[in-house]
Amino acid sequence: MAKLIALYKQPEDKAAFDEHYFNTHAPITKKIPGLKEMNVTKFVGTPMGKESDYYLMCEMVYESHNALKAGLKSDEGKASGKDLMNFAGSLVTLMIGEDVDE
Amino acid sequence: MAKLIALYKQPEDKAAFDEHYFNTHAPITKKIPGLKEMNVTKFVGTPMGKESDYYLMCEMVYESHNALKAGLKSDEGKASGKDLMNFAGSLVTLMIGEDVDE
Repeated sequence: MAKLIALYKQPEDKAAFDEHYFNTHAPITKKIPGLKEMNVTKFVGTPMGKESDYYLMCEMVYESHNALKAGLKSDEGKASGKDLMNFAGSLVTLMIGEDVDE
Repeated sequence: MAKLIALYKQPEDKAAFDEHYFNTHAPITKKIPGLKEMNVTKFVGTPMGKESDYYLMCEMVYESHNALKAGLKSDEGKASGKDLMNFAGSLVTLMIGEDVDE
C-alpha cells in the first residue's frame, strides 16, 4: 500500500475552503484511477487546547507506489493537481507514505 | 471516532529515532486505555521527488473525544506523553481530529 497525504494549513476563510474542497476538489480527486480509499480528517485542536497547525488532512490510498504515480499522471490526477494548486496551493503540503507493520 | 495524530519532523539520526520509536515509545503508547487502533505511516518523499517535511505519522483512534481525553489522562497516557517529550519533544506536532463522512 502507498498513500498520498495532503495536509492543509488553517485557511483564512474556512467556509469558502470547505465549499470548494467538498463540492469541487474531492469529487475531482475521487475520479483518479487506482485510488482505493480516500479518508478525510478535520482537525479540531491540540491536546493542549490550542488551535492545531493544520485544518484538514486527506489520505489517498493506492495499491502500490507505481499505482499512485500512474494515478497522479492520469488526466484525472492532473485535473485534481491543477484544482489543488488553484484553490489551496499556499496551504497544502503533499507527502507520499507507506504503512508500517509493527 | 476521534483521532490523535502525531506528526514527526525529519530527525537528525533516523536510526536512533526508529530504535526508540518502535522499541520503546510505540509499546508504551499501545497500553493506553481506550486506544482502538494505531496506524503508523512512514513518509518516503513528495510527489515532486523531494524529501518530505515530515518523517513519520501516527494515528491513534479512540471511540470518542471523551475516550481520547481519558486515555491521555491515564497513567499510561502520561507515561507515553513523558517519553514523547523526552525523545522527540522538538520534532512532534500533536493534533486531535475527526473523520469526515462524505
